[in-house]
Amino acid sequence: MSNQLDTIAPLREFVIGMTNLVSQETEQAHLISKGSELLKTLIQSDDWLPEFCTVPHPEFYQQYLLHADPLGRFSVVSFVWGPGQKTPIHDHCIWGLIGMLRGMEKGQRYQQLPSGELVTDGSETILRQGEIEAVGPTIGDIHVVSNAISDKTSISIHVYGANIGAVKRHTYDPLTGQPKQFVSGYSSKQVPNLWDRSAEVRASLT
Amino acid sequence: MSNQLDTIAPLREFVIGMTNLVSQETEQAHLISKGSELLKTLIQSDDWLPEFCTVPHPEFYQQYLLHADPLGRFSVVSFVWGPGQKTPIHDHCIWGLIGMLRGMEKGQRYQQLPSGELVTDGSETILRQGEIEAVGPTIGDIHVVSNAISDKTSISIHVYGANIGAVKRHTYDPLTGQPKQFVSGYSSKQVPNLWDRSAEVRASLT
Ligand SMILES: [Fe+3]
Ligand SMILES: [Fe+3]
Ligand SMILES: [Mg+2]
Repeated sequence: MSNQLDTIAPLREFVIGMTNLVSQETEQAHLISKGSELLKTLIQSDDWLPEFCTVPHPEFYQQYLLHADPLGRFSVVSFVWGPGQKTPIHDHCIWGLIGMLRGMEKGQRYQQLPSGELVTDGSETILRQGEIEAVGPTIGDIHVVSNAISDKTSISIHVYGANIGAVKRHTYDPLTGQPKQFVSGYSSKQVPNLWDRSAEVRASLT
Repeated sequence: MSNQLDTIAPLREFVIGMTNLVSQETEQAHLISKGSELLKTLIQSDDWLPEFCTVPHPEFYQQYLLHADPLGRFSVVSFVWGPGQKTPIHDHCIWGLIGMLRGMEKGQRYQQLPSGELVTDGSETILRQGEIEAVGPTIGDIHVVSNAISDKTSISIHVYGANIGAVKRHTYDPLTGQPKQFVSGYSSKQVPNLWDRSAEVRASLT
């Protein structure tokens, strides 16, 4: 799909599209529906993801920041699952979109009863390459997610309505439903350079 | 100066300040004057610059992208001079600010006569740590710059009113004034992650 001179173009176009979207829209339902369309286009190909954002860790799932909006209106993350890796039960406290890029994810949603107890919300689901799901306080925010492939890396691209690595959110004790604050951070001190368009521009010089 | 948990904070604050500025202002004179104030604050300390954006090349001056606005309204670059390195005579075709972070730069401005010939505009200047100068089509856009220190690396932080690495601009033949198109690109495929505030947030968890 990608221009050989400009492999990262699909990610750059996505970031530009999302930046225009959050500049024009503030209603969450619109951000989710229009963001989903943009994400659907992004995950149609996967050769745009830089190598360093695809590397699994032997023990922990990795969260490579791909882009954060400077005004904190959205962020984009490459979520890399090693074989058998699984999150705790957790929430996000903001809207989020999950688009499957490579492999498969297994997910189970939960609801918290007024008593504080967690109960499953629907049955376990499988997210396949090219598919998208949404989470958030108004549409169901608590879930547990794992790599659905036991012997391979899976990668999903996540978009959130804030700088997700800095959001105070919660993990939940599966037995008691007791929440515990956490903040995820990011797995790398560097992000991809989306903006070097010089090869393309150079090819057009007279 | 910087918080030990969040070394990169001054650069993040600068990027947020510039993003707010370009969201509110379009007049170039204001962008230059307010951008200069923000840049002055940024270059008061230098411990925020990530190591990989300080590395000189034995032969060529390096241009490490620190941040590009997704809508192309500004970009920030770490310009790293090895000993003795020097640009060709060149222009920018947009406004730019140069803030001296480490070491010193020597600059000579030029004007192009209607005949096409280049003549010096003022005498050679020295830019010292903490000082700022501006370039641009309306305020003098043609110059040659070099490391003013013969045996050390110098580093200046540049801010431009576009994605500078992708701008079609010109070098000039010093004898004839003949312009030649070029595009500079960037020296790294990665940029710093300015957005991992998790250490700070984690320290505040209850
Ligand atoms: Fe999640
Ligand atoms: Fe210059
Ligand atoms: Mg100092």
